[in-house]
Amino acid sequence: MPASTTDTTGVPPVPVIGASGDLGLGLALRWAAAGVPVVIGSRDAGRAREAAERVSAAVPGAEVAGMANADAAAAGPVVALCVPFAAQLPTLASLSESLVSDALLVDCSVPLATAVGGRPTHSLGVWHGSAAQQAQQAVPDGVSVVGAFHTVSAATLADLEHPLAEDVLLCGQRKADKARVAALVERIPGLRAVNAGSLETARIVEQLTPLLISVNSRYRTH
Amino acid sequence: MPASTTDTTGVPPVPVIGASGDLGLGLALRWAAAGVPVVIGSRDAGRAREAAERVSAAVPGAEVAGMANADAAAAGPVVALCVPFAAQLPTLASLSESLVSDALLVDCSVPLATAVGGRPTHSLGVWHGSAAQQAQQAVPDGVSVVGAFHTVSAATLADLEHPLAEDVLLCGQRKADKARVAALVERIPGLRAVNAGSLETARIVEQLTPLLISVNSRYRTH
Repeated sequence: MPASTTDTTGVPPVPVIGASGDLGLGLALRWAAAGVPVVIGSRDAGRAREAAERVSAAVPGAEVAGMANADAAAAGPVVALCVPFAAQLPTLASLSESLVSDALLVDCSVPLATAVGGRPTHSLGVWHGSAAQQAQQAVPDGVSVVGAFHTVSAATLADLEHPLAEDVLLCGQRKADKARVAALVERIPGLRAVNAGSLETARIVEQLTPLLISVNSRYRTH
Repeated sequence: MPASTTDTTGVPPVPVIGASGDLGLGLALRWAAAGVPVVIGSRDAGRAREAAERVSAAVPGAEVAGMANADAAAAGPVVALCVPFAAQLPTLASLSESLVSDALLVDCSVPLATAVGGRPTHSLGVWHGSAAQQAQQAVPDGVSVVGAFHTVSAATLADLEHPLAEDVLLCGQRKADKARVAALVERIPGLRAVNAGSLETARIVEQLTPLLISVNSRYRTH
């Protein structure tokens, strides 16, 4: 059991796919610190184990493991997908047998133009309307997608000394799905889940990332 | 001179086109209350005069006049355009002789789907990328467009008893243009101008209006 004051009895592990990246690692650290068991996924099982060791080092007693993406995704019912946009569809293809019916995919993808060598203040038009809607088309039947975490700074998440005070905008088709994700969001002290609207509202919310990058680059903050 | 403690010597009037609408009236009230002379424009000169009388009633001593759009737009160098999206292009066509070179158009348009009978949480795709970019194509040569005020509640602006504490995101091609608009924004106590990026960043910022409507409708706030 983690060295946490929170009762985590019965909390299933949260698979974090792409936790060797900045956002994924930040979420893994925060959930681990909150006593939520985490299973880190990476394309390479060795890198996943390395990321898990970083979490263990930062959060003594954390319940954390690292494994290849497909194994990680099968470890819990609510799966956070934190890979760069260019890796979203290939990663989802690799998870098709791991995401069982009633699984919930929390998609954190942002279609930044960096995926095709463009600027981080520009974004790509996605055929389905947004990365989250694209994910919904790509997951197996019975799996729901909720878009989330587009406005949370990965660097701030990863710095456990930094107190959080942020809204997390959730986009999804069903209230029940958003409530499940909201509960997980609010396990992290200082994060407040906000129901931002239907899944297609991700068209707007995903654009907040390049907007924040634009403003922050002008004021040299992050 | 207005009954204001601010020194407004030499402050040119601000034409507010569409001030018989909610946002325009709110801005006219706030500028008038800050001692900035305002010229309200409407398609109908009579409605413009009525709006000016409402401002005078709310702000004793306000320096405010009402006239037809084309006359109003010629009254000052920085013109605020606060008409519904469906009226943006027709209004700009009617202003073509009033907007002289070096004029600055502050475009507050939001391409909500309500313009075509759709929902306020949905938006329209604009050929040029955003309403502000469409405005830039429609104004005479030498006139610059800055997008602004998309996230400010018209109802809050219009309630002079309500203290403001809000960022106003500015999108424009040139820093100097944004600085001119920022100075005008910050004449209103409690508003802080933020350089959000280039004019095309309006593609994102204009989407914040339907996003705010979506969130607020779910939490029954405005």
